[in-house]
Amino acid sequence: MTKKTWRIGVAGLGTVGGGLLEFLSQRPDFAPVGDRAVITAVSARNRTRRRTTDISAIAWFDDPVALAASPDIDIFVELVGGSDGPAKAAVEAALKSGKPVVTANKALIAVHGAELAALAEAAGVPLLFEAAVMGGTPAVKMLREALVGDDISALAGILNGTCNFILSEMESRGRSFAAVLADAQALGYAEADPTTDVGGFDAAHKISILAALAFGCAPDFAAAEIEGIEAVEQLDISLAKDLGYRIRLIASTEKTADGVAVRVHPSLVPFGHPLAETRGATNALFIEGRRIGRIFLQGPGAGAGPTAAAVAADIADIMTGARRPVFQAPAALLNPFIAIAPDHRVGKAYLRLLVKDQAGVIAAVSETLAECGVSIDSFLQKPVEDAGGVPIVLTTHAVAESVLTEVINRIERLPAVLERPRLLRIARI
Amino acid sequence: MTKKTWRIGVAGLGTVGGGLLEFLSQRPDFAPVGDRAVITAVSARNRTRRRTTDISAIAWFDDPVALAASPDIDIFVELVGGSDGPAKAAVEAALKSGKPVVTANKALIAVHGAELAALAEAAGVPLLFEAAVMGGTPAVKMLREALVGDDISALAGILNGTCNFILSEMESRGRSFAAVLADAQALGYAEADPTTDVGGFDAAHKISILAALAFGCAPDFAAAEIEGIEAVEQLDISLAKDLGYRIRLIASTEKTADGVAVRVHPSLVPFGHPLAETRGATNALFIEGRRIGRIFLQGPGAGAGPTAAAVAADIADIMTGARRPVFQAPAALLNPFIAIAPDHRVGKAYLRLLVKDQAGVIAAVSETLAECGVSIDSFLQKPVEDAGGVPIVLTTHAVAESVLTEVINRIERLPAVLERPRLLRIARI
Repeated sequence: MTKKTWRIGVAGLGTVGGGLLEFLSQRPDFAPVGDRAVITAVSARNRTRRRTTDISAIAWFDDPVALAASPDIDIFVELVGGSDGPAKAAVEAALKSGKPVVTANKALIAVHGAELAALAEAAGVPLLFEAAVMGGTPAVKMLREALVGDDISALAGILNGTCNFILSEMESRGRSFAAVLADAQALGYAEADPTTDVGGFDAAHKISILAALAFGCAPDFAAAEIEGIEAVEQLDISLAKDLGYRIRLIASTEKTADGVAVRVHPSLVPFGHPLAETRGATNALFIEGRRIGRIFLQGPGAGAGPTAAAVAADIADIMTGARRPVFQAPAALLNPFIAIAPDHRVGKAYLRLLVKDQAGVIAAVSETLAECGVSIDSFLQKPVEDAGGVPIVLTTHAVAESVLTEVINRIERLPAVLERPRLLRIARI
Repeated sequence: MTKKTWRIGVAGLGTVGGGLLEFLSQRPDFAPVGDRAVITAVSARNRTRRRTTDISAIAWFDDPVALAASPDIDIFVELVGGSDGPAKAAVEAALKSGKPVVTANKALIAVHGAELAALAEAAGVPLLFEAAVMGGTPAVKMLREALVGDDISALAGILNGTCNFILSEMESRGRSFAAVLADAQALGYAEADPTTDVGGFDAAHKISILAALAFGCAPDFAAAEIEGIEAVEQLDISLAKDLGYRIRLIASTEKTADGVAVRVHPSLVPFGHPLAETRGATNALFIEGRRIGRIFLQGPGAGAGPTAAAVAADIADIMTGARRPVFQAPAALLNPFIAIAPDHRVGKAYLRLLVKDQAGVIAAVSETLAECGVSIDSFLQKPVEDAGGVPIVLTTHAVAESVLTEVINRIERLPAVLERPRLLRIARI
């Protein structure tokens, strides 16, 4: 094996870029193949910002697109972020000039993955994105390479550390979403604009990518059903606990004869289940395969060290010269994404009602459920102070989403019901 | 990407070989690269045995070595088993004739991995063995490729499904090792000669391979410290439970400034810990990295489906044309394996004593421990019928192995102590 030095161009020197800079300056010879990786050019928003690694000897580009197209680099690493704008332009420029690309950009791959895969495959160069999902925990390589001898049927996991941190804190401290979010922002665990995380969009980007890898379909972020954790109330956390569940933001995808569903929902997971026991900023993923059974993977979902290590592993992979499609099949052969219709999406549900304290309410509610053909799994009525009514919680056996919507609409119209019932899904895995 | 058909030669048509035969006959085009994989030649002990897949159209070889050297195959799959004999001869023949090799043979890789890696690298062909460790759960690829941007410091896991099944059954049914083993043999979960499994040798083969991948040292099965589960008593399972622990056969390896330790021991793991909660034939592995933190991987450790899927994934990998060393560095650069000396191997321990029911025993035992500088973490004395004495259990804070041996020798010599103390390690991870 002949030694070679790969000149790495990095656009974006935030947490991950800084981590990569530090790692490669200390261990340029980390790759098993034996080649060297040296960062020879960078681009970032602020040239003079204080950094832990000196960049004065590294070529500077104001424009990431110019860096990506530069003939003086062999691999382009995109750490700018955002599904469009300079990140996309730079990745396109790199691929068009025949350069392998490594990116940590989940939004870019979830939204434009198929077209970028086509570009990469036309140029005959790799487009790798291990760091885009679960940080340093190698879910991407696992699905892209290690499980190709299986037929994956479903994935479900915790893919956003910020949400899991917030839900864990809400539970252990008994505080509201808003209060815990403010703390998390003060500590730097949540962004100033937290929408991408708490709105479920980040988790949806990630599960869209994993679905494409698992099922050989083009990633289609627009088809994802997304619900964030903003509306999760302390009352639901405590009622779920009474029923033996913990609330987690579950990103899931499954493939059936009807198509593929990609979903992000705050969901109930039973105590003792590994996803319920995944606390703080940790990420976790269940992979269900028809031949393999179940695989569980858990690890750090973010952070400079783990994420930079994932970028480095992708660089080492490029050095091997492996030719493989970007997703589970060449871009032209990826299946179109066919969403499963609501009447074919079936699952158990948790419904929390606020009702007037009067006789006959429970009868009216159970009658409505029976009329819709929904059977009740558990039922809990509990006096709660200052709730402005009596909370009733029930969990159902498996029911189609379309029926669930009908049930909620009908319960909401009952005279003794004070507000639209709160729906939470019960995790399937 | 140009399509190609890879002619696969398979030696050994047992459970895994049968699973592979079935899979490739149904899905020859499974690989993402788009090439086809077709089994064109086989070798097995019995040509006429009834099989689920018809092999009459496939070339038959009586001799696996002749199959391996045949110019009519492109990839050789070794599923014969055994560290030496025909398996080794066949793998050598395939590599020497320039053919990529896929094997599920943990003994072969653990014992002869470095020399076979040198052969493979000299021939410029891959030698892959995903199926050798954790069946369909991709621990090998994870360590070989996905975590190369990290510095792995330790691994610990449950790598033998038979032992975990037996320990789970002993706990849940309250039956002896011998009784549960007999059941497992009757059900086909344990071999007629169970030594490889229950003696800890299979787990030791696997952790030796993982250590080589994690630390870039040559696999050295001979350096592994191996203790099986044959001596685990129901009394220890129940006393450990009283202290909040479950007994698991833990295979572990760590790298320190002093060297590398590879060990297999029945060990105490606290309730709630993912390794304690891993039941039945499931495998599990913790990976601890200096940059990444902790990753946990859990899944099926055996079975035709999962293991054949792992072999298939290796075949798909060969099609990518990736060039990489067999372990974490080219064979010639693998570090020699330097075992950590007992006085540098530190851990917590469980000691179970059987003592005479008389005054002053506890004082004598605690004095002995104090003299050796060992501090006690917990202490339990419990009347047990028919034990022939009074069992005393104590757990220690971290102590060097060499000190532990001295403590046990000294306690054994105390007049009130009826037998040599039983030592179990407390898992570090």
